[in-house]
Amino acid sequence: MRMYDIIMKKRNGGELTTEEINFFIEGYTNGEIPDYQVSALMMAIYFQKMNTRETAELTQAMVESGEIMDLSSIHGIKVDKHSTGGVGDTTTLIVGPIVAAAGVPVAKMSGRGLGHTGGTIDKLESFAGFQVDLPIEKFIGNVNEIGIALAGQTANLAPADKKLYALRDVTATVDNLSLIAGSIMSKKIASGADAIVLDVKTGSGAFMKTEEDSFALARAMVDIGTHTKRNTIAVVTDMDQPLGYAIGNALEVKEAIDVLNGKGPEDLRELCLTLASQMLVLGEKAATDTEARVILEEIIASGAGLQKFADFVEAQGGDPEWVKNPDRLPTAAREIPVLATQSGVVSSIEAESVGIAGLLLGAGRETKASKIDLAVGILLKKKIGDPVEAGEALAVLHVNDEAKVEEATARLRKAYGISESAESPKLIKGIVRSDETIKF
Amino acid sequence: MRMYDIIMKKRNGGELTTEEINFFIEGYTNGEIPDYQVSALMMAIYFQKMNTRETAELTQAMVESGEIMDLSSIHGIKVDKHSTGGVGDTTTLIVGPIVAAAGVPVAKMSGRGLGHTGGTIDKLESFAGFQVDLPIEKFIGNVNEIGIALAGQTANLAPADKKLYALRDVTATVDNLSLIAGSIMSKKIASGADAIVLDVKTGSGAFMKTEEDSFALARAMVDIGTHTKRNTIAVVTDMDQPLGYAIGNALEVKEAIDVLNGKGPEDLRELCLTLASQMLVLGEKAATDTEARVILEEIIASGAGLQKFADFVEAQGGDPEWVKNPDRLPTAAREIPVLATQSGVVSSIEAESVGIAGLLLGAGRETKASKIDLAVGILLKKKIGDPVEAGEALAVLHVNDEAKVEEATARLRKAYGISESAESPKLIKGIVRSDETIKF
Repeated sequence: MRMYDIIMKKRNGGELTTEEINFFIEGYTNGEIPDYQVSALMMAIYFQKMNTRETAELTQAMVESGEIMDLSSIHGIKVDKHSTGGVGDTTTLIVGPIVAAAGVPVAKMSGRGLGHTGGTIDKLESFAGFQVDLPIEKFIGNVNEIGIALAGQTANLAPADKKLYALRDVTATVDNLSLIAGSIMSKKIASGADAIVLDVKTGSGAFMKTEEDSFALARAMVDIGTHTKRNTIAVVTDMDQPLGYAIGNALEVKEAIDVLNGKGPEDLRELCLTLASQMLVLGEKAATDTEARVILEEIIASGAGLQKFADFVEAQGGDPEWVKNPDRLPTAAREIPVLATQSGVVSSIEAESVGIAGLLLGAGRETKASKIDLAVGILLKKKIGDPVEAGEALAVLHVNDEAKVEEATARLRKAYGISESAESPKLIKGIVRSDETIKF
Repeated sequence: MRMYDIIMKKRNGGELTTEEINFFIEGYTNGEIPDYQVSALMMAIYFQKMNTRETAELTQAMVESGEIMDLSSIHGIKVDKHSTGGVGDTTTLIVGPIVAAAGVPVAKMSGRGLGHTGGTIDKLESFAGFQVDLPIEKFIGNVNEIGIALAGQTANLAPADKKLYALRDVTATVDNLSLIAGSIMSKKIASGADAIVLDVKTGSGAFMKTEEDSFALARAMVDIGTHTKRNTIAVVTDMDQPLGYAIGNALEVKEAIDVLNGKGPEDLRELCLTLASQMLVLGEKAATDTEARVILEEIIASGAGLQKFADFVEAQGGDPEWVKNPDRLPTAAREIPVLATQSGVVSSIEAESVGIAGLLLGAGRETKASKIDLAVGILLKKKIGDPVEAGEALAVLHVNDEAKVEEATARLRKAYGISESAESPKLIKGIVRSDETIKF
């Protein structure tokens, strides 16, 4: 078998066989097939696409290119959740504890943030002493004891995906549904998930800007799940504005605690309940979404979710008292409001610009080596559909270093569109399951 | 400027600017742009194509990537000839001398053969002592004195093309008209041609299998010529069977001498007169094709062409007596006929298979390091349209080493198609000039 023939076949619109896909992924992973042949194949795939079978087999080959987490000693169905990435997305900190409280084991691998989207690990490190470098025995033990654990990705998961992604990133071959879907799913499958709930963001602040593309990506990932025997459900959700009000690590933790206390922003609470309901169904702790939602609302109302979060923080070295008294989390030195310059109704909030404003204040990393300031960030005061008067605060910057306040203020003000009238965007756009697509 | 943006632009169907084309070719030549980005761009070009301006500017950038031969001290318009490659193509050995005898300076860079197509240098080395490593002064001096010189490509001509071609060859991105046309034309322009006559082969034994593709390639190359101010004419000619009867180095030289003696195969003579006529017109030694043909036929009839060939051989170290007595050229030890197994009319001769049969006998190089046997090869006895009786010779193998005679015989027999009736294919399919395309 020759890589040349594989490139030629795909270039001419052919369908790659299982053997050809495995040959290419194995050869690329072990360095026998050079980058220049793979980038040519990626561009051919960009133009000629891959079908469902090819996509699933590429994903499976990437899974098998490295270690596969063995979580078989965890009792129950391990349901993982993944978000395609947004701004102010604190769902993991809420969904994890409430799902665990409902009896679905949560064994989560997570990453650090890069650029304007935050990482769950960074947020959790707002708790002094929080440890993410857990040995595998401790990680599994925690899940079996308290139902939830979270670790950084230390294992060599799907190295073919890592290598392929880095190549696609510099050869303008990222934008292909099969390759995007395969990249996400390979990491989830390699990290040991039995079932997967996907939060596919759509809108100006998301990777996929249109609902059409977002539903197509959702379908591609769910089909990979079906083919690889991982029950998968995707929820397509709004990212035309940031989720909730908080952007920044400790600020988002506080907001998550608000939701676990039965308070907090309605959109964040609603999204968490939707995602968690799907996880309960996949984890066989509820028969329907409706039944799951009743269980989850009771878990929040009773304080069981908040308690689970406190147990989780404690089990990984943090002080559970901080969950009860979130004022002890890192706090910025100054709060500087960003004032509206005109009256009207908020009609748009560019999530990406808000994220970049947070980055400027120190809430995110520009490069992998950047240090982040856990205390700083932004609290939005207005969201789409809210009336606003000139001189009223659109948002409040939480600041330690004032060097880039001016730039962040300008960014933030520009992120807001104000017009005569506007309606709040629909949060949940639809659900994609193996056998159905429901658009709301 | 970033290579990433150039790939993305072409991927999305955009038109590259002069600056973008120069940036890419310069960066690739000097090693700043890696292979993996270039192969992605080549695949994007395969799908999205390049227009005439982009193609010409890519060609010009490749010309400027290395040395450009300065032939300005040669008097007259230097008209070069290039063939896209066929089997038994001995035209250069005939066209060069007759064109030179008509007063058009012939300053030719040529290559050695690889695979089943022969190289002009190899053929000329059938003359003991023939030198192709001429210093530039001697090369130019010979052209000014006797009108013709031929040298191996020693200069660093169009290195970007060399690097690009090697990459395209392993990434399934050879088959793009702009890239093929640019590759050929960049070398011709860099080797100092003022005007160019192209012999674009078409048919089963050619790189371009269909007339449609061949005319498109001809048009692409002529357009590059127009854009770079090199008068260019392309003749589209048949390669559905080998040209002439001889395949093999000394055998082809003898056949060329036959044509210069006013004899030889009709198709070879006709093609040479057609190509040479175009060269005389471009070299301004004749006003029309018809006038040129009269001049050239007289040059052959008078023996002036043969004499020019003898002068040329002598000037580069060979014995001119061998031109008068071609029996002194290398001769194989044995002649083995390949007999027809059925009667009928020859309806097809796969030129490529005939070429490979010659390669098996030692007439060509399998790798760059292979040694070739100048004496061996094949003399065809039947061509398309000829009647044949079972037991009659289709061809005669000229053999020194008998190890692969059986394989060569089988190849050759399989190359011949015999049916009830067949017509000889039309030799000249058409002519492409900057302002017109004529199909015969």
